Amino acid sequence: MCKSLFMGVALASVLISQVGAVELPDPESVRTDRLQLMQGFPPVADKQITLASFMRPYPNPRWSFHHAREFFSSRRVARGNEGVYVLPREQGREQQIAGLTFAAPDGRQMTFGQYLDETYVDGVLIMQHGKVLFEQYQAGVDELQPHILWSVTKSVVGLLATQLIAEGQLDAEALVTDVIPELESSGWRGATVQQVLNMTADINYSEVYADRDSDVMKYSLAAGMAPVPHDYAGARDIYSYLPTIGQGEDEPGVAFRYRTTHTEVLGWILRRVSGLSTAALIEQRIWSKLGAEQDGYMLLDSKGTEWAGAGFNVTLRDLARFAEMVRLDGQFNGQQIISPEVVQTIREGADREAFKAAGRDFQPGYSYRNQWWISHNPDGAIEALGIHGQMIHINPAVGLVMVRQSSHPIASSAATMPLSIPAMAALADLLR
Amino acid sequence: MCKSLFMGVALASVLISQVGAVELPDPESVRTDRLQLMQGFPPVADKQITLASFMRPYPNPRWSFHHAREFFSSRRVARGNEGVYVLPREQGREQQIAGLTFAAPDGRQMTFGQYLDETYVDGVLIMQHGKVLFEQYQAGVDELQPHILWSVTKSVVGLLATQLIAEGQLDAEALVTDVIPELESSGWRGATVQQVLNMTADINYSEVYADRDSDVMKYSLAAGMAPVPHDYAGARDIYSYLPTIGQGEDEPGVAFRYRTTHTEVLGWILRRVSGLSTAALIEQRIWSKLGAEQDGYMLLDSKGTEWAGAGFNVTLRDLARFAEMVRLDGQFNGQQIISPEVVQTIREGADREAFKAAGRDFQPGYSYRNQWWISHNPDGAIEALGIHGQMIHINPAVGLVMVRQSSHPIASSAATMPLSIPAMAALADLLR
Repeated sequence: MCKSLFMGVALASVLISQVGAVELPDPESVRTDRLQLMQGFPPVADKQITLASFMRPYPNPRWSFHHAREFFSSRRVARGNEGVYVLPREQGREQQIAGLTFAAPDGRQMTFGQYLDETYVDGVLIMQHGKVLFEQYQAGVDELQPHILWSVTKSVVGLLATQLIAEGQLDAEALVTDVIPELESSGWRGATVQQVLNMTADINYSEVYADRDSDVMKYSLAAGMAPVPHDYAGARDIYSYLPTIGQGEDEPGVAFRYRTTHTEVLGWILRRVSGLSTAALIEQRIWSKLGAEQDGYMLLDSKGTEWAGAGFNVTLRDLARFAEMVRLDGQFNGQQIISPEVVQTIREGADREAFKAAGRDFQPGYSYRNQWWISHNPDGAIEALGIHGQMIHINPAVGLVMVRQSSHPIASSAATMPLSIPAMAALADLLR
Repeated sequence: MCKSLFMGVALASVLISQVGAVELPDPESVRTDRLQLMQGFPPVADKQITLASFMRPYPNPRWSFHHAREFFSSRRVARGNEGVYVLPREQGREQQIAGLTFAAPDGRQMTFGQYLDETYVDGVLIMQHGKVLFEQYQAGVDELQPHILWSVTKSVVGLLATQLIAEGQLDAEALVTDVIPELESSGWRGATVQQVLNMTADINYSEVYADRDSDVMKYSLAAGMAPVPHDYAGARDIYSYLPTIGQGEDEPGVAFRYRTTHTEVLGWILRRVSGLSTAALIEQRIWSKLGAEQDGYMLLDSKGTEWAGAGFNVTLRDLARFAEMVRLDGQFNGQQIISPEVVQTIREGADREAFKAAGRDFQPGYSYRNQWWISHNPDGAIEALGIHGQMIHINPAVGLVMVRQSSHPIASSAATMPLSIPAMAALADLLR
């Protein structure tokens, strides 16, 4: 059962060199409309997807990633009762964008359309200066269906944390344990809120998606992301699990290491400071103000606690509204939703030397600030990333926003970023 | 753990005489806004509600019945992207209705407002000739929050089944096993679709909510409504459970006996005939056409199968739209949503002698037709009922619709109907 959470590929998430060796299915062969997943009453055994097979075997994620609430308990993030902010459109650019070519790392000339196919995209939407130029769905997804964002969730939570800091409700330099005394004996002892935001707090915790002995498995089981094994004696909810994580070997603040549990601690901090659940905080502060088309939702553990690091599900268009709001320094749909200095803080980025500790060579020159990936490229692009190819890409210089939802067979961003980075650069050049 | 599903009251659901002996909490004392249920991060232990405590102890249902998706996996029933059909209102009737008096069975003169309080209402909406006269929420519910309908779900499913019969897609006189061969060795062998609709098919199955040894417990565990005990060896999904239910002692068609598993079989039949999940069928045929305000949702078992007999959750106003559509013979929001002959079929009712077998003395003169309760009173009122006080009441003679959602401490309708019947009669007389 433990195995069920992971892709069956021999991939250490940080080692891009291994990605090339993985046997990936032809994207055309794993279109959901021909897979017949979860069709029939009851579905035949090999088309049935349950909590135990939500993540694997492939191609189950092609269906389950846009039906996540059918496997987990969830809390609504309501769009509210206001009108929809209709995204304006500029017609006639689709073919140009789909046919755009760029050089892939393996030397191939690749079209943008091939990039989308080969990274198993479920939906992609591209905007420039607020107008939709390109919108495409695959794998049975459409504009009505929320799709799991995985760690793009972190960037939503990080934005809200930065907002509460700007308002003086949360002190970035406070010790985590000053806000959450329950973590006094944990690895977060001595770390500041800012170090949690930047993931430089040092804990004894590993996050390698392809390794079933990695600590991320313990987190997953505590959060209820997979059925627990018969003899399971570990934590069964997020609040019980976090205090059991011990101290790492480094000093806090020195090295960036990507750990979802930092965001779960951040979620705990925001709940305690705001008095709101993560779902309610997102809803009140952001989602009800975006003119969103559909309700979103957060996935929950057995105690009703949101997966603050992974559990947000929204439609592609609503994700685009959120991303456009960030591009516009928080001003969107006639309101200042997030303070301009909040977005500015994130854009500044963090220590690029500290970033190198994570060994993410597929993101050269990046830093990680307040749960966002900062490219430090000449256009000042910033990104939100989730496993299996989820992405927000914001290029302020070109006025470009791309959001993508996907179900790549490989969890790690090492599988998609080597294509996404040159693809985004080519797109920016086209639109410049 | 088994115990968790049932109220801790010594109540045989059919014995109204015992209801009076139950010690019920003062309704004022179990208002959620003072109960602090699920407040705090994490909530303190006695305010924490989980899957195991969703139903009990009281007052947990006061919170959990309008947060059901936070305990279970669920499938959306979308309102669609059409405009809202705004319910017209007639102002100035609230006080008159709240102050209306009637004689309770125990001889007390009771106001309509007291009736609502004493039956632990969470929300109630009254319409006459399509105009809202009265709308009230308690217990933290509001117009945005879906609330579990429990067995009112059955009436939605029954209406759709009757529609498919009217269209010739389903033969009411077909054997159940002709449609679902998987039930060949079950208690449904020899029963017709119509007998399932009227719950006169005879199976070896008891449904007494206050008896933990009743078969309804097995159904509940199979459907995933409660955590299974450690040594549980029974079915873990609805499709696996239904074929294990054996034949009863009577002939099919003779006696009405209320069993949720009949509706689960009906759900299976509709899925097979329509090729749609129950959620999709409700959405496509009804919910997307009502001009509903909010998405609804169906709760699911571990295989993603809807609880066709119990799992629909919608807002009070959207339930009112549905009820008004039925009152208007299927014509609502500018469309003929359900055929007039479908509603006519239901209104005709069924065999009142057969009804008596169920011993439901608290519904004198009633029959049960196609998953609806038919009063056979002079006004031709029909009803949909769910445990813990859920109700749709439609009085065609007076043009009256009342919908109520509630969290009564007692599951059986025996606890609410002795008050609801005279309350509805008094309301009808007021509006006549």
